[in-house]
Amino acid sequence: MAEIRVIVVEPKNPGNLGSIARVMKNFGFNELVTVNAPKIPFEDYFRSMKGHEILEKRRDVNSLKDAIQDLKMVIGTSGVISKSRNAVLRKNYSSRDIASLISDVKGKVGIVFGREDIGLTNEELSLCDLFMQIPTNEDYPIMNVSHAVAVVLYELFVSEKEESRDVIDRDKLDRLVAKFRENLLRNNYPRHRIDKTELLFRRVMARAGITEYEYRVLMGTIGCKDYSREQ
Amino acid sequence: MAEIRVIVVEPKNPGNLGSIARVMKNFGFNELVTVNAPKIPFEDYFRSMKGHEILEKRRDVNSLKDAIQDLKMVIGTSGVISKSRNAVLRKNYSSRDIASLISDVKGKVGIVFGREDIGLTNEELSLCDLFMQIPTNEDYPIMNVSHAVAVVLYELFVSEKEESRDVIDRDKLDRLVAKFRENLLRNNYPRHRIDKTELLFRRVMARAGITEYEYRVLMGTIGCKDYSREQ
Repeated sequence: MAEIRVIVVEPKNPGNLGSIARVMKNFGFNELVTVNAPKIPFEDYFRSMKGHEILEKRRDVNSLKDAIQDLKMVIGTSGVISKSRNAVLRKNYSSRDIASLISDVKGKVGIVFGREDIGLTNEELSLCDLFMQIPTNEDYPIMNVSHAVAVVLYELFVSEKEESRDVIDRDKLDRLVAKFRENLLRNNYPRHRIDKTELLFRRVMARAGITEYEYRVLMGTIGCKDYSREQ
Repeated sequence: MAEIRVIVVEPKNPGNLGSIARVMKNFGFNELVTVNAPKIPFEDYFRSMKGHEILEKRRDVNSLKDAIQDLKMVIGTSGVISKSRNAVLRKNYSSRDIASLISDVKGKVGIVFGREDIGLTNEELSLCDLFMQIPTNEDYPIMNVSHAVAVVLYELFVSEKEESRDVIDRDKLDRLVAKFRENLLRNNYPRHRIDKTELLFRRVMARAGITEYEYRVLMGTIGCKDYSREQ
């Protein structure tokens, strides 16, 4: 799991920073950097409950550029996406996709939350490597920024827990898929369908997240060898 | 997908109700019932943004019993779980498990959020059919109630979207698993391992969430029939 820096760009309401610090603590994240944040009044430190340490260690910088200099990867997120901005984006991932994508990154990853009203500027968006969107009801996609942080950190926390399920690496997935294909070939599976079927099998297995144990068992079930010779 | 009623028991801070109404709107849920809530001041209606309709239609009742009378299923959730309370619980599901579980329920489901400080009383817990826990860092599991609502509704929203992926029903899953077992039997797979292997295959397929199309393709790949006769 990559280390995470939560970056909040020009939050208007300092109370949201207290809420953000608290939910960071709930999901075990510690590093908060703000860009041009207002001064945080005492009551919002109080509001952050056990997140107050995070507020105390928070750095405030003058631009997004300063907030991301030392990062391996920068992920932009914003409730507001105008059409002109959409054109700037390289690719738009869902919060769930991002969570599984990040788990492979070695190094620190920044997740950038935009302003509640105008989101991120085109210049800021162009500093991001990837873009994430939280799936919401189309009628009203604009979330409170602390809710957006809550949902994203929840996804990261849960997917890290799932990671610890000991899912097989790419090599083993390749071997499982290769054995599946080999078996289809041996059984004269229609040649014009074999590539598509292999891809389908790969997707299903990737989605299921096969563990080492499941991998060994499934490898033993593919193919037509006569097990009676083994017994 | 079941209809959802969000139930908040004795919230102390009316500001949280504004936040809850807003995030309900974000994820397309509309029915809010509170138990002994304080009066909501004007600024919290304002704070709920487009969620103000939900606050206006909200019902406040005197007890959890009154809030759940007409429901098909009641799910309790709370950040605080004392040991004595744990004993009351029938089973503890994660927010993700609950989301997929609810999707099969026909009728209205209530999700009950407890007090921030003392959670739900034993009497209130005994009114719940199931219990849900949001996975959090053990150091500080107590979430702001509006964050807890955000995460749970997010899960319900996302899993409903995934549902629309046209996942096969239980009957077809049974047929896929039966064909898998039949093939193992035909190939003299070790008898003492066959039940366990069948269960493992079932779990992997259930986790992947096989679509109708994938089901048809996978059915065609299991077994040793010689496809050349088909071509």
